[in-house]
Amino acid sequence: MLQGISSEAFVLGCSAIAASIAMLAGLGGALGQGIAAGKACEAVGRQPEASGEITRTMILGQAITETNAIYGLIIAIILLFVQPLLGGL
Amino acid sequence: MLQGISSEAFVLGCSAIAASIAMLAGLGGALGQGIAAGKACEAVGRQPEASGEITRTMILGQAITETNAIYGLIIAIILLFVQPLLGGL
Amino acid sequence: MLQGISSEAFVLGCSAIAASIAMLAGLGGALGQGIAAGKACEAVGRQPEASGEITRTMILGQAITETNAIYGLIIAIILLFVQPLLGGL
Amino acid sequence: MLQGISSEAFVLGCSAIAASIAMLAGLGGALGQGIAAGKACEAVGRQPEASGEITRTMILGQAITETNAIYGLIIAIILLFVQPLLGGL
Amino acid sequence: MLQGISSEAFVLGCSAIAASIAMLAGLGGALGQGIAAGKACEAVGRQPEASGEITRTMILGQAITETNAIYGLIIAIILLFVQPLLGGL
Amino acid sequence: MLQGISSEAFVLGCSAIAASIAMLAGLGGALGQGIAAGKACEAVGRQPEASGEITRTMILGQAITETNAIYGLIIAIILLFVQPLLGGL
Amino acid sequence: MLQGISSEAFVLGCSAIAASIAMLAGLGGALGQGIAAGKACEAVGRQPEASGEITRTMILGQAITETNAIYGLIIAIILLFVQPLLGGL
Amino acid sequence: MLQGISSEAFVLGCSAIAASIAMLAGLGGALGQGIAAGKACEAVGRQPEASGEITRTMILGQAITETNAIYGLIIAIILLFVQPLLGGL
Amino acid sequence: MLQGISSEAFVLGCSAIAASIAMLAGLGGALGQGIAAGKACEAVGRQPEASGEITRTMILGQAITETNAIYGLIIAIILLFVQPLLGGL
Amino acid sequence: MLQGISSEAFVLGCSAIAASIAMLAGLGGALGQGIAAGKACEAVGRQPEASGEITRTMILGQAITETNAIYGLIIAIILLFVQPLLGGL
Amino acid sequence: MLQGISSEAFVLGCSAIAASIAMLAGLGGALGQGIAAGKACEAVGRQPEASGEITRTMILGQAITETNAIYGLIIAIILLFVQPLLGGL
Amino acid sequence: MLQGISSEAFVLGCSAIAASIAMLAGLGGALGQGIAAGKACEAVGRQPEASGEITRTMILGQAITETNAIYGLIIAIILLFVQPLLGGL
Amino acid sequence: MLQGISSEAFVLGCSAIAASIAMLAGLGGALGQGIAAGKACEAVGRQPEASGEITRTMILGQAITETNAIYGLIIAIILLFVQPLLGGL
Amino acid sequence: MLQGISSEAFVLGCSAIAASIAMLAGLGGALGQGIAAGKACEAVGRQPEASGEITRTMILGQAITETNAIYGLIIAIILLFVQPLLGGL
Repeated sequence: MLQGISSEAFVLGCSAIAASIAMLAGLGGALGQGIAAGKACEAVGRQPEASGEITRTMILGQAITETNAIYGLIIAIILLFVQPLLGGL
Repeated sequence: MLQGISSEAFVLGCSAIAASIAMLAGLGGALGQGIAAGKACEAVGRQPEASGEITRTMILGQAITETNAIYGLIIAIILLFVQPLLGGL
Repeated sequence: MLQGISSEAFVLGCSAIAASIAMLAGLGGALGQGIAAGKACEAVGRQPEASGEITRTMILGQAITETNAIYGLIIAIILLFVQPLLGGL
Repeated sequence: MLQGISSEAFVLGCSAIAASIAMLAGLGGALGQGIAAGKACEAVGRQPEASGEITRTMILGQAITETNAIYGLIIAIILLFVQPLLGGL
Repeated sequence: MLQGISSEAFVLGCSAIAASIAMLAGLGGALGQGIAAGKACEAVGRQPEASGEITRTMILGQAITETNAIYGLIIAIILLFVQPLLGGL
Repeated sequence: MLQGISSEAFVLGCSAIAASIAMLAGLGGALGQGIAAGKACEAVGRQPEASGEITRTMILGQAITETNAIYGLIIAIILLFVQPLLGGL
Repeated sequence: MLQGISSEAFVLGCSAIAASIAMLAGLGGALGQGIAAGKACEAVGRQPEASGEITRTMILGQAITETNAIYGLIIAIILLFVQPLLGGL
Repeated sequence: MLQGISSEAFVLGCSAIAASIAMLAGLGGALGQGIAAGKACEAVGRQPEASGEITRTMILGQAITETNAIYGLIIAIILLFVQPLLGGL
Repeated sequence: MLQGISSEAFVLGCSAIAASIAMLAGLGGALGQGIAAGKACEAVGRQPEASGEITRTMILGQAITETNAIYGLIIAIILLFVQPLLGGL
Repeated sequence: MLQGISSEAFVLGCSAIAASIAMLAGLGGALGQGIAAGKACEAVGRQPEASGEITRTMILGQAITETNAIYGLIIAIILLFVQPLLGGL
Repeated sequence: MLQGISSEAFVLGCSAIAASIAMLAGLGGALGQGIAAGKACEAVGRQPEASGEITRTMILGQAITETNAIYGLIIAIILLFVQPLLGGL
Repeated sequence: MLQGISSEAFVLGCSAIAASIAMLAGLGGALGQGIAAGKACEAVGRQPEASGEITRTMILGQAITETNAIYGLIIAIILLFVQPLLGGL
Repeated sequence: MLQGISSEAFVLGCSAIAASIAMLAGLGGALGQGIAAGKACEAVGRQPEASGEITRTMILGQAITETNAIYGLIIAIILLFVQPLLGGL
Repeated sequence: MLQGISSEAFVLGCSAIAASIAMLAGLGGALGQGIAAGKACEAVGRQPEASGEITRTMILGQAITETNAIYGLIIAIILLFVQPLLGGL
């Protein structure tokens, strides 16, 4: 019946769970970044003299991939800090 | 019974969960972007002199992929900020 | 029992969850677009002089793939803005 | 107990969730279209002079694949706009 | 308790959810069609002069695959339009 | 409590959900048919002069695969039309 | 509480769901049959003169695979037609 | 509360669901049999003169694989016909 | 509330579901046996004169794999026939 | 409410479900054993004269793998026969 | 309501389920051990004279892998025999 | 009914679960980092003299991947320490 | 309602389930260790004279992998033995 | 209703479950570490004289991967020991 639980506590509980789900968006990207790092190591191993170029490409590609996790982080922070204030529950 | 929870709190809780689910759309794209970054590193490693062309293709492809995460972000922001106002609950 | 929650709030909550599920349609497409971007980088790396052709093919293929995410976005927006008005709940 | 929720609201809520599930049919197709786009880029990279033929094949194949997402979209739109009218709830 | 919800609304709600699940049958087929389109692009890229034969094979194979999604569509339409009439609820 | 819902409505609701689950049997077959179509395109691309043989094999193999989806369709139709009559609920 | 639902309706509902789950056994077999069809097309494409042998092997292998779906179909039909009679509910 | 449902109906419902779950054991075997059929087609295509040997090996391997589905079928039939009698509910 | 259901019926229902879950242990083994059959066909196709050796190895390997499904079958039969007697419920 | 169900029946029901879950540990091992059998067939096909060595290695490897399923079987048997006695419920 | 079930029975039921979940840790290891056995067979097939070395490596690797399943077994046995005593419920 | 549980305890419970879900974001990244480490070992094995370059690339790529897990860790720590203070429940 | 179950029993039940979930961390590591063992066998088969080096590398790599399962084991043991004491419930 | 369970017990139960979920973060990393160990064995087998370099790279890569599991362990320990003290429930 959840009778003893205030509306504020219900929203805070949902936001906590939601913030953690939003962080999962980083799961796919991190796997992808790891694959990119592996491919870069492989490429460096084959052409050590091009390691500068390869590393730059890897960092650039990973940085763009990182944006997805950052979007998730932003939403998580909004859920934990901003929304409760705005909601003015 | 959820008797003590107001309608407003119920909608806020649902929106919080929904915003975080919408962020998961970035999971697939981020994995894809990582794969693209890996392939680009591999290509640069094989043809360092074409690294400009390859990087440009990678950024272009990743940017289009990024749109999916941005759609998710837009929906998440609408769910957290716009809808409560419009609903005029 | 959900006794204290109005019908309007119930529909709004369902629509919020539904809008976020609809965004997940972009997950597969984004993964596919990333794979396409990776293959394009690989192809450019092998034939830098054909990078114009390859990039054009990549953009065309990704644009068609994008339609799926856009359908999801349309349904999400209908769920958040249009349906409540039409329902005239 | 859901006592305070009208029959109309219950059906609207179910239809909203159902419309979003129907959109997920696009997930597999979009992944497939992305794979097709990647293969096309690869093929163009190997035979740039045949890019017209390849692009035409890609568009044709993706268009047929698209039909699945469109079926899902049709069902989603029926669920959101047509069924409530017909049901005459 | 769902006390306030009529039998008709319960069946309509179930049918809506069921119609959307039936649409998911298109998910696997669409992925398969995309793979077929990719293989066709690859084949055209290797033998551009046989593109007519390849495209015909692709369309034929995809058309047969399409039948699965169409079966799903038929069941979805029966669920939304025909069954309520027959049930004579 | 589902008190207000008649036995007939309960069975109809279950049958609707069951009919849609039965349609999912087509998911695996459609994916398989798509793979078959892709392999056939590949084979035609390598031996265009054998396209008649290949297409015949593909159609035959896909037709046998189709049977699974048809079994699912039969069960779905029995669930929607035949069983309610027989049950004589 | 499901108070208003008769025992007969409960068993019929369970049987309907069960019949559709039994049909899912065809999912794996259909995927396998599709893979077999694809391999057969590939083999015919490489050795068109052996297409008779290959097709015969494919049909034989698919027929044995089919048995699994048929077992599922038998159980589904027993669940829908035979069991209610035997149960003498 | 399930108050209106007899013990017999409860066991029958559970048995129906259980019988269908037992049939799913055939899913993996059918996928495996399909893979075996595909490999056999491939082998026949490479060595048509050994098709007798290959087909025999395939049938033998598939027959052993079949046992798993048959075990599932036996348990399903026991659940539907034998157990209710033994239980003497 | 399950008030109307006897303890005996509850245990019988659980055992039925449990027996079917135990059968799923055969799923992985059957997939593995199918893969083994496929590899054996491939090996026979490459060395028809060693088909006796290969078939013997396949049967031996599959027989050991079979044990897992048989363990599951034993537990399922214990659950359906032996345990109720021992429990002396 | 489960009011009518004795503590003994509750534990027996849980143990039945638990025994079947423990059997699933054999699923992975059986798949692995099947893969091992396949690899052994392949190896025998390539070096028929070493079939004794290969078969011995396969049996040894499968036997060690088997231990996992046997641990599961032991726990299942403890759950069904030993624990009820010890618990002295 | 679970009113009629004693605290002791509740803990025993949870422990039974937990013991079976702990056994699933063996699933991954068993799959890995099977893969190791397969690789060993392959290696023996290629270098029969090194079968002693290979078998020793396989047994060593599998033994270390086995530890995971043994940890699970220890926890399962603690859950079934030790904890109830210590808890002194 | 959860009547005896205070609002504070409800939020603390949700935060605990949420903190652990947020840690799962590290799962994908850790898998990716392991793949990167494997590729680096492979590369070092092929070009031992470039091991410095390869190791540097691996560490750089893994460090960027690590950020995802760190974001998850930050959110988990906020959920456990900061939010309860801010919420001022 | 769980009225008859003491707080102590509730925590013990949760801890039992949690201890078994913590053991699942060993699942991934065990699969990885098995893959490592397989690769080591393969390597030994190719370079029997380096079997000492290879085995040492395998044991070292597996030992580091083992830490994950040991962390899980530590948490499981804390959950079963230490926490109840500290909680001083 | 959970009426008889104190707030403290509810939080302790949630924390126990959460601590075990946090340990699952080690699952992906352990799989990755195993893959890294396998690749290292392979590399050593090909270049035994570089085994020092390869082992060093493997240990470094696995150590960075290990951090994810350690983060999970830290959160698990905070959940079990620190949070209850701080919460001052």
